[in-house]
Amino acid sequence: MPADTLRAATVAARELADWPPDRLAKALHLVADALAAAGDKLVPIAARESNLPVPRLEGELGRTVFQLRLLAGEVTGERYREPVVDRADPDWPAGGRPDLRRLLRPIGPVLVFGASNFPFAFSVAGGDTASALAAGCPVIHKGHPGHPELAEATAAVVSAALGRAGAPEGTFSLLRGEEAARSALQAPEVKAAAFTGSPAGGRALYALAASRPDPIPFYAEMGSVNPVFVTPGAAAARHAEIAAGYTDSYLLGAGQFCTKPGILFYPAAALPEFEAAVADRVRGQAAATLLNDRIAQAHSHRRAELVAHPAVRVVAPGTDTPDGTRAALLATTLPELRAAGEVLLAECFGPTSLLVAYDGEHELLAAARLFTGELTATVHGEAGEQVARPLVRRLAEFAGRVVWNGWPTGVAVTHAQHHGGPAPAATGTFTSVGTAAIRRFLRPVAYQNLPGELLPPPLRDHDHG
Amino acid sequence: MPADTLRAATVAARELADWPPDRLAKALHLVADALAAAGDKLVPIAARESNLPVPRLEGELGRTVFQLRLLAGEVTGERYREPVVDRADPDWPAGGRPDLRRLLRPIGPVLVFGASNFPFAFSVAGGDTASALAAGCPVIHKGHPGHPELAEATAAVVSAALGRAGAPEGTFSLLRGEEAARSALQAPEVKAAAFTGSPAGGRALYALAASRPDPIPFYAEMGSVNPVFVTPGAAAARHAEIAAGYTDSYLLGAGQFCTKPGILFYPAAALPEFEAAVADRVRGQAAATLLNDRIAQAHSHRRAELVAHPAVRVVAPGTDTPDGTRAALLATTLPELRAAGEVLLAECFGPTSLLVAYDGEHELLAAARLFTGELTATVHGEAGEQVARPLVRRLAEFAGRVVWNGWPTGVAVTHAQHHGGPAPAATGTFTSVGTAAIRRFLRPVAYQNLPGELLPPPLRDHDHG
Repeated sequence: MPADTLRAATVAARELADWPPDRLAKALHLVADALAAAGDKLVPIAARESNLPVPRLEGELGRTVFQLRLLAGEVTGERYREPVVDRADPDWPAGGRPDLRRLLRPIGPVLVFGASNFPFAFSVAGGDTASALAAGCPVIHKGHPGHPELAEATAAVVSAALGRAGAPEGTFSLLRGEEAARSALQAPEVKAAAFTGSPAGGRALYALAASRPDPIPFYAEMGSVNPVFVTPGAAAARHAEIAAGYTDSYLLGAGQFCTKPGILFYPAAALPEFEAAVADRVRGQAAATLLNDRIAQAHSHRRAELVAHPAVRVVAPGTDTPDGTRAALLATTLPELRAAGEVLLAECFGPTSLLVAYDGEHELLAAARLFTGELTATVHGEAGEQVARPLVRRLAEFAGRVVWNGWPTGVAVTHAQHHGGPAPAATGTFTSVGTAAIRRFLRPVAYQNLPGELLPPPLRDHDHG
Repeated sequence: MPADTLRAATVAARELADWPPDRLAKALHLVADALAAAGDKLVPIAARESNLPVPRLEGELGRTVFQLRLLAGEVTGERYREPVVDRADPDWPAGGRPDLRRLLRPIGPVLVFGASNFPFAFSVAGGDTASALAAGCPVIHKGHPGHPELAEATAAVVSAALGRAGAPEGTFSLLRGEEAARSALQAPEVKAAAFTGSPAGGRALYALAASRPDPIPFYAEMGSVNPVFVTPGAAAARHAEIAAGYTDSYLLGAGQFCTKPGILFYPAAALPEFEAAVADRVRGQAAATLLNDRIAQAHSHRRAELVAHPAVRVVAPGTDTPDGTRAALLATTLPELRAAGEVLLAECFGPTSLLVAYDGEHELLAAARLFTGELTATVHGEAGEQVARPLVRRLAEFAGRVVWNGWPTGVAVTHAQHHGGPAPAATGTFTSVGTAAIRRFLRPVAYQNLPGELLPPPLRDHDHG
């Protein structure tokens, strides 16, 4: 980890902390413009390095550009800095109160770990970088080794755009290699880190951040099995539609989404017909080349572990062919899943999913108690079903997002979005998607009895008359 | 850790999550009423166990009662659950958006570690308990061994009041002993923890929480040296007033506050006169009995380490007498402090403080770069001094609260208050005082396309027309 990079980021943090919001917003728009203009150059590199289809990558780039613009709009609104003003009051209980004014300010240089599965939206100029910059924090980005050339090319676009915006030199830098990243994570100059990736990788880095003399927030989004719960009513009313939706959702992007539905609970009595419909659709899918060899091998290994498990019945085995990976469909029952939970409840990143037969509403509600932390949980239900209310309540106990009659893949970038969840899905209570993602990189400071001219502008009296 | 306690807390969490805000608020008011009524019984126990004077403890109990009432008011306001509604919009960029509605919900059972130095305000019914209950979370409280009888007596008052409020049995429980607390911190039923105490204790428990298979938020407030920066202008204009204020602040509660000013920077040329004034006032103080033997011994040991340090000049040595501890005043210079930073910059909990002579505005600003995370930082300055602006900016980089022409001790319980700071002062970006302290125990959940009747009431359309 070059000391120059860290020093430059620290200097940049001081300068950016004084930038007015419209200047930050303009910088984000310039990055968005530059990315959009560079699509013809960047998308082919991404396609070559990630094996993802060009239309999907074009869409992802569009999402990335939009995300930068949405966050720019949020910054201009000032709401995100959450100013609170308590004027002095000698009669305030418990001894009076001084003039106290609180504002969120940028936390300082942020280390961002790029993800393998979204070469644009969760990588160099993705959500973590966009929200750190929106917060006024310099970014040190660790490029994902799955798409090194794209990381370099995107970083060049981002750096040039920030240069045009007048941002100081250390506002953005690209790191290469695991050792440099581990060293940066322990550097006193780095004040927060964000990670999207595997539970193993996330937990190791989280432990490293926690072991610092001054532990920093480490925001890791580490994936999820995203359980889906189909009620008896929904199974009776629309099994074909649910079968198609489920298959398409778990095979979207060859199952390489952190919101992939990895487990679906279905009424045992109706399962055969549903399973057949899903299996038909699965068999109709072409083989897909996964993101890279490491991920293909990890999927193959994990799938083999599931297939070999005595509690698992194999509906479609999934195979690795010269043309890529074919999807797998597995099945079990709730009692077997409960007995084998530690193995079967872990994520299988790739085109594999598990059907679980349950018997009655009691078992359906019991199934919802198997999870401790998930990015999403989905219900397919019908109006008026009694079980819906207690089920939704239980899902809200462990999920970051509860979906009704839809599918968890596809995470809209909005104000109300929440992409996170209790551990092991994530480390903390943050969202890494949507405008609230900026909050990760802000830290409150209260100012006591400061003269107006020394207060940050949003806290001055003319702003809060 | 009795399994019954954990199970009861989990059951209580489910019930409390459905309580309407006014019911939660009423429960907090009942606890406040009961505490206020029990003052005559509780204060004498506290005085005997903590060696703190009765008027101080009466004031602290009043603060604790007020805190419960203020948080009750916040809960009724609903603002604290931060509802955000994004209605479905097919034209929303990057693929349209579904109906998404986000709300903060209680995180689940919270483990609270009581503090030694505030037997009421940061103990059984203190700020952490009050904000967890306000959030709708059951509390498992680890009583501080420094005041075991008070912990039992206060817990009985709290439990009885919660019973009258109709709260389920597991809403509050008291734990005894370190082993029970460590076991609770690792229990899957516990979803967050809050701690106020020493850096060593806080860091050990933080590491334990981080090592769980599902790491939980661990909010530790671990103290601070709370540096004070006196500008040349302020030193020239009002040295006697600053000397008196400083002495009174660092000796308040015999220096056993986490906001005690442990270091004060003063212009070298003017130091002799200031130092003499402080020393006079220090010598006029009576000896004070510290909270307990463990703390008295730790202070004695730490003071001896400072006194023996070659960079330290002893102005008033401080001694341990049969009547208690006499205050110590030490001095050094900025260059010596920089050279010996690791030893001199650490907190000395108790009636000891360090004067640091600096030479010119350049050194004053350099002094502000010595700190990485502090609960507070204070400036004494005069209107129009050029150095004030860059100094305040630097302090905001590491402090949770920046105080102007005042003293850091005395933390008002208000909306804008922020009592926290970057590590090593605290683990994260939270406040443990003020209405925003509730936020620690809430977790966002987004609901996608849910029918209105299945949404939490604050997210339904009739509430957000």
